[in-house]
Amino acid sequence: MDDLTISRPGASAIAAVKAALSTRFGNRFSDTATIREQHGHTLTWTANQPPDAVVYPQTTDEVVEIIKLCAAHRMPVIPYGTGTSLEGHVNAPLGGVSVDTSMMKSIITVHPEDLDCVVEPGVTRKELNDYLRDTGMFFPIDPGADASIGGMASTRASGTNAVRYGTMKDNVMALTVVTANGEIVHTARRAKKSSAGYDLTRLFVGAEGTLGLITEITLRLYGIPEAISAGVCLFPSVKAACDTAIEAIQSGIPIARVELCDEMTVKAVNLHSKLGLPEQPMLLVEFHGSDAGAKEQAERFGEIARDNGGGDFQWTTRPEDRSKLWQARHDAYWACFTLRPGAKAIATDICVPLSRLAECVEDTQRDLASSNLLGPIVGHVGDGNFHVNLLIDMDDADEVKRTEAFLERLVHRGHAMEGTCTGEHGIGQAKMKYLAAEHSQATLDVMRGIKKALDPLGIMNPGKMVG
Amino acid sequence: MDDLTISRPGASAIAAVKAALSTRFGNRFSDTATIREQHGHTLTWTANQPPDAVVYPQTTDEVVEIIKLCAAHRMPVIPYGTGTSLEGHVNAPLGGVSVDTSMMKSIITVHPEDLDCVVEPGVTRKELNDYLRDTGMFFPIDPGADASIGGMASTRASGTNAVRYGTMKDNVMALTVVTANGEIVHTARRAKKSSAGYDLTRLFVGAEGTLGLITEITLRLYGIPEAISAGVCLFPSVKAACDTAIEAIQSGIPIARVELCDEMTVKAVNLHSKLGLPEQPMLLVEFHGSDAGAKEQAERFGEIARDNGGGDFQWTTRPEDRSKLWQARHDAYWACFTLRPGAKAIATDICVPLSRLAECVEDTQRDLASSNLLGPIVGHVGDGNFHVNLLIDMDDADEVKRTEAFLERLVHRGHAMEGTCTGEHGIGQAKMKYLAAEHSQATLDVMRGIKKALDPLGIMNPGKMVG
Repeated sequence: MDDLTISRPGASAIAAVKAALSTRFGNRFSDTATIREQHGHTLTWTANQPPDAVVYPQTTDEVVEIIKLCAAHRMPVIPYGTGTSLEGHVNAPLGGVSVDTSMMKSIITVHPEDLDCVVEPGVTRKELNDYLRDTGMFFPIDPGADASIGGMASTRASGTNAVRYGTMKDNVMALTVVTANGEIVHTARRAKKSSAGYDLTRLFVGAEGTLGLITEITLRLYGIPEAISAGVCLFPSVKAACDTAIEAIQSGIPIARVELCDEMTVKAVNLHSKLGLPEQPMLLVEFHGSDAGAKEQAERFGEIARDNGGGDFQWTTRPEDRSKLWQARHDAYWACFTLRPGAKAIATDICVPLSRLAECVEDTQRDLASSNLLGPIVGHVGDGNFHVNLLIDMDDADEVKRTEAFLERLVHRGHAMEGTCTGEHGIGQAKMKYLAAEHSQATLDVMRGIKKALDPLGIMNPGKMVG
Repeated sequence: MDDLTISRPGASAIAAVKAALSTRFGNRFSDTATIREQHGHTLTWTANQPPDAVVYPQTTDEVVEIIKLCAAHRMPVIPYGTGTSLEGHVNAPLGGVSVDTSMMKSIITVHPEDLDCVVEPGVTRKELNDYLRDTGMFFPIDPGADASIGGMASTRASGTNAVRYGTMKDNVMALTVVTANGEIVHTARRAKKSSAGYDLTRLFVGAEGTLGLITEITLRLYGIPEAISAGVCLFPSVKAACDTAIEAIQSGIPIARVELCDEMTVKAVNLHSKLGLPEQPMLLVEFHGSDAGAKEQAERFGEIARDNGGGDFQWTTRPEDRSKLWQARHDAYWACFTLRPGAKAIATDICVPLSRLAECVEDTQRDLASSNLLGPIVGHVGDGNFHVNLLIDMDDADEVKRTEAFLERLVHRGHAMEGTCTGEHGIGQAKMKYLAAEHSQATLDVMRGIKKALDPLGIMNPGKMVG
């Protein structure tokens, strides 16, 4: 992998870049320890590796300037959105300049007739949806955190709505990207589809900033559904819950969301939100459509749930009741800490074919138990994607070791079931070894060939993904 | 572009490759003039440029052998499916070996629980759907021709169902590809989504065989809908028809198909099929869902059509009546010839944002009239994509010239409306100049950088797309 790895820049290069950026960007530049540390990885157990400096551009042209300057000094460039990625994507293992897009927040245009909009990368998904509220449209991708659209595009984010609306791959129509040589690339025009050349849009989506820095995103939007019905149902087993989801999808019910909380997650939510739910696997579902359509979907889903031994399916179309129903899912991440106050959380994810999901989740629960580890599970069951929120005492060296071994087995289990080491969190630093395990040498060579072609100096977010 | 263009191989290289292939593949090798010409471009007005030889591999390993042999002799490799592409994709401007995938027809596995299947590239879409019939599932992408799945993936095909089911980009989950150096690359696993590395699947989809040859495709499948309702409605103008489609999509009606036939197309269909339809712009629509859902969709669409001045919306759910309703659309291509028997047909396509479609179609109709050209129009109105089926007397030099100028203006018109020079036909040879007009130099440089990284010898389908 040596040919893709640049060296840590020398002190004089760092000083020269910092001086130039400071002069050019004034108070939109910082190299204080606090700001630098905030721009390294701050979640999970991956160590914080701060950049040498942080700069806040406001335009694509400013990003061009920054990247050209960094390229001239072989200085790493680390794109930064909201810092909510989970696998060390924003760390600076070789130092370099963190390019924080939080001052690029324009919603440039909204086209209601075309159901699309063009935004800058620092706009967060909640900011976008607040802005859109009066238009009758919304942007559905919801990875949990209020992430920036640029970051979501770069990590190919998805989340609870993906079963109906797809992931960022399906909802980014075009990008403006500043490449490693400081050129501005427009990947596509605003037509809904195109067969004109290589699909550069999809190449930069999920590239984690290793091929360029995204400065404009054209997104698909959707009409806010006339009706939304939501429901909760308890099941005797994870398998019964998963089978329900599979059968519903097979029968063509256009489920908008279908989330699994395992027994442990329900327990955590009970402790956290005092909901008093029976500690059984639970599905939370949501249907979007016309009044009659959403109702019909909920009824058909309820029948399938009953056939699989599910309990009464409580459902509602009133917004306030929906929020309450979904509270359990929304609180799940924070609720888990109540199971073990003071613990460090590591949210990991894998994704397997739907048919293997129940088996994979149940095997993982057994593995957790026999490893004496605490890891509530939530799953985007419509996609075969699930998260284990491991709660670890970082002072217990043996527990840390057991956790590492568990993560290794988790990915291996996913791979053995034709799955992937990450459905939506991405590779960053922490999953590089799993990426190598997932693909053949020939496949990795193609990825590395692309990296080298687009970033011959290796300055774009080095030490991530393939090198 | 010189650095991407290889030279035409010398006589000794051609002889050596032919001898080796003939020995190795026996009667699965041919260099007769007839077979060679059948494997050049045979549709539209693009001249036929036959390959030096044709070979019919049966396995991925055989494709590896062929490509390694060709690489050793700097011999072009031209992937061939059914030859139904429209822009000269299968021509051999530098000679070379056409690799015909028609003996790779295995449907390797079907996974009903995961709604996916794995097929070889020579399987056609109709063969796949025939095979799937008893499973309750279907593969929705329908570009018109009974194209091979490998070819459809390579050209990023779409067609009438794309408004609901997306294009090949959205329905290819993973690929096995033999690259230009004869390595086997698996782009992804069978999970429904993944954030593990660069999206190689989408890079090879639409690459038109210029980066490698696809030997296995994992496809998304869908449950056959419980009910299908179809309808036909006449409108006073193209704009009224387009506005109806836009409003229906905005209001969230999940239309499965919505096709526009302009006045001229209706006239052709009347002549061809003796349907006696009023010669007005016509929308043909189809809705998929539950019994109640499909009915509700049709009713709501009918209301929107009426509000836009549409005539009575005739609809039906009976399969035989549906076929009859859709006959007009299915016959459109052949029907057009009745307008001018003996003419050469050139089916071209552009795609613009939905909001510009009516204007673009109407401007194009005016352009046709003032250019004294005959070109019925059909459109995938839900995607902003339309086709002009030009009928040309190739012996009339002036008409040929006027047609060329018209095509130039058509693409320019699309570009001026933020559209693309091709929504679904691809670039091939015939649209290379429009690809260059569509993208900036920086964007083309990225595409060419990728081509060079993955095919340094330039042997994969040379003279297409970017070089």
